[in-house]
Amino acid sequence: MNGITPLFTDLYELTMASVYYAHGLVQPATFSLFIRKKSPPPRNYYVAAGLEEALHFLAGLRFNTQDLAYLKTTELFSADFLDYLAGFRFSGDVVAMTEGTIFFPDEPLLEVTAPLIEAQIVETFLINTIGFQTMVATKAARCVQAAQGRTLVDFGLRRTHGQDAGLKAARCSYLVGYAASSNVLAGKMWQIPVAGTMAHSLVQAFADEQQSFAAFAETYPDNSIFLIDTYDTLAGARKAVQVAKQMKTEGHSLLGVRLDSGDIATLGREVRSIFNATGLEGVKIFASGGFDEFKIERIVADQAPIDAFGIGTKVGVSADDPYLDIVYKMVRYDGRDVRKVSPGKKALAGQKQVFRQSDASDQYVADTIGCRREQVETATTLLNSVMQRGQILAHSPPLAELRRQFQRNFNNLPQRYKTLIPLNGPVAYPVRISDELAALQQHIAQA
Amino acid sequence: MNGITPLFTDLYELTMASVYYAHGLVQPATFSLFIRKKSPPPRNYYVAAGLEEALHFLAGLRFNTQDLAYLKTTELFSADFLDYLAGFRFSGDVVAMTEGTIFFPDEPLLEVTAPLIEAQIVETFLINTIGFQTMVATKAARCVQAAQGRTLVDFGLRRTHGQDAGLKAARCSYLVGYAASSNVLAGKMWQIPVAGTMAHSLVQAFADEQQSFAAFAETYPDNSIFLIDTYDTLAGARKAVQVAKQMKTEGHSLLGVRLDSGDIATLGREVRSIFNATGLEGVKIFASGGFDEFKIERIVADQAPIDAFGIGTKVGVSADDPYLDIVYKMVRYDGRDVRKVSPGKKALAGQKQVFRQSDASDQYVADTIGCRREQVETATTLLNSVMQRGQILAHSPPLAELRRQFQRNFNNLPQRYKTLIPLNGPVAYPVRISDELAALQQHIAQA
Repeated sequence: MNGITPLFTDLYELTMASVYYAHGLVQPATFSLFIRKKSPPPRNYYVAAGLEEALHFLAGLRFNTQDLAYLKTTELFSADFLDYLAGFRFSGDVVAMTEGTIFFPDEPLLEVTAPLIEAQIVETFLINTIGFQTMVATKAARCVQAAQGRTLVDFGLRRTHGQDAGLKAARCSYLVGYAASSNVLAGKMWQIPVAGTMAHSLVQAFADEQQSFAAFAETYPDNSIFLIDTYDTLAGARKAVQVAKQMKTEGHSLLGVRLDSGDIATLGREVRSIFNATGLEGVKIFASGGFDEFKIERIVADQAPIDAFGIGTKVGVSADDPYLDIVYKMVRYDGRDVRKVSPGKKALAGQKQVFRQSDASDQYVADTIGCRREQVETATTLLNSVMQRGQILAHSPPLAELRRQFQRNFNNLPQRYKTLIPLNGPVAYPVRISDELAALQQHIAQA
Repeated sequence: MNGITPLFTDLYELTMASVYYAHGLVQPATFSLFIRKKSPPPRNYYVAAGLEEALHFLAGLRFNTQDLAYLKTTELFSADFLDYLAGFRFSGDVVAMTEGTIFFPDEPLLEVTAPLIEAQIVETFLINTIGFQTMVATKAARCVQAAQGRTLVDFGLRRTHGQDAGLKAARCSYLVGYAASSNVLAGKMWQIPVAGTMAHSLVQAFADEQQSFAAFAETYPDNSIFLIDTYDTLAGARKAVQVAKQMKTEGHSLLGVRLDSGDIATLGREVRSIFNATGLEGVKIFASGGFDEFKIERIVADQAPIDAFGIGTKVGVSADDPYLDIVYKMVRYDGRDVRKVSPGKKALAGQKQVFRQSDASDQYVADTIGCRREQVETATTLLNSVMQRGQILAHSPPLAELRRQFQRNFNNLPQRYKTLIPLNGPVAYPVRISDELAALQQHIAQA
């Protein structure tokens, strides 16, 4: 993930930078990255993700000669400014929430403090990578919650928005507790367990369905999950039973079967009966096809005997809420706290910290958004120093550790904030503004 | 876009390939890529996009030693099969619609014919890249349609799903007629004109709003678009007038101002009056903030004096319909036409062609999905041979030519099929199945 060109940006970041350069606006600025509330709220909580790539981007930011040659062709930049860009490095400080942290709208999940030009031109990338990963981690976490311990596997790669999204969706769904991904490249990149079943094409390539199962089992005697809905699901289940029995005589076991169409709850029960009637209680039933947290919740509520879900499209694109209202706003420049007042687009001025209070059993009670240097007794601070003077302070924990980080956060979020549809939830998690931060806003408004 | 690893795939593509390999299933297969109808239909028409990258992927497909080493660690593949992968090349044939072609659900936009393993393992990538690009090109085309000649600029980069999506969204929106993109890297990659204005942070970095405009104009005397809503839009407009007058005295012109919040139609009229009252009729008004085809249509219907739109999030993620039901299905194997019959998941068996009939003034009348070798008099065939034996037949036309291709298609699509909300449209574009193709389906169903 190194070496992403700084041309991955909106043109105005560079033209503004050139204005700052020409006018000597080179003092430190602080920008705050946060999610705005939507109304009605589509989510009860969010899961921070994407920091690792963001920090690598900042640390590796260089304009190479091709980049500079291209910028020259636009005739928008002076030779002086292009020379400046040739030596450009990101030299700022970053505070951020660890990936896997549960957070809420208006809370900054990252703040950059750097000379204005540096802080400005990284806006587009930071919003892009942290926004998308946070969105998908959040959506996937809701599926984990709905599944109540059943196994989830990411099948989203073919329907995510391009290649990068497919990789990140695999990473983020593993981060929040999926068991595996079908995405082979993500498996290689992050040591995510890879898993899969078979497609209808395999069944069709053989002249006979049962023959296709037998062939698959021959190659994968201990790793077979048969897809049984190509022609008739119950007939397919009975053929799978025949092959499973044969496997048993050879000392192997059929792992499972997959249902990909029809009424999954009803078919699941019927297929379960067919297997149980022949002593194949150990064969798992996988379901796929349009699953998201809502459809999982219905299957679980219905007590359908589905052991695992293949989760694809709707989570990979966060179909019910496919973008966050995530913004990166200047909150301080040259020692002066600032805010804009456009309708519906306010930001909290000043360098901030998020304080989280928990009860004696570690359950989260409330958050307070305060000034960076405030002290709030008994509270945990969520924004940690992760980069100083352009240097990453510590290597990002491995994905397995981030997974535990999320699990701890999730366990500590009280159950009443975990309703899937926020409108049905009793109360929103309390997020307050500290007196000191409120006073600062007031002070600026009157200035 | 070369050199994408073949590990960009779902695990089951490779495990199925290993079963095919072990069982000698090496005959040619044909797979068909098409979009399934959704109900209710969210779109009246689709715009094919993504072929260029798809062909480069196929032509460049190689498993390198790292890929093979990783696959070995999964313990799912025999040494023989890994040896086979080491020498793997895509040697198949592809027919496809040119990018920019308007098409409809059920019509194949691409068909691959190749030895089964080769045709199978490219599934995930083909669906991913053609699906996303087609979705975004279609969404952007609806904006062009709604804008009725007003200028559109892509501002989507920060909110697209990752980096790859941001680049492709810029390419696809230019393909369908946007004037420019804010995406600098896309500008470099595809010679797309780049454009932009300024952000609120620039206004805030200066102690005074008017001073920020003056500074920007000093650096960009012929390329300035002022963002006027940071504090108060009408006051911002009056400050912009002051700076514009000064620019005039120096022989320059303010290009425009941008509105990013509030009631755009009303503010647009007021701002237009302010500029016109001072003889600045030439200053354009740009609008941004949550625009999509529906919001553009309202502004246009309201005859609001908005000259150009910055179109971001909602188009970059196709927010109202963020995924296509696009599939890649085996329709023929080893000389045998095949189809699966899972509920709601039918595919048309056999190698196909799409025939389009037009009237004397080139307006499209109807399409017929037929067998590949049928002849339909007076019809244009939409699927062209683009790859043979793994070789790209002709280099993809430059983006400017694809843009003209789309424009021709769009001009030839009768107005009655261009309603934005299909439910309000009078009729769906007629797509028929030829008698010969229908007979083939019947024949298989009875077999």
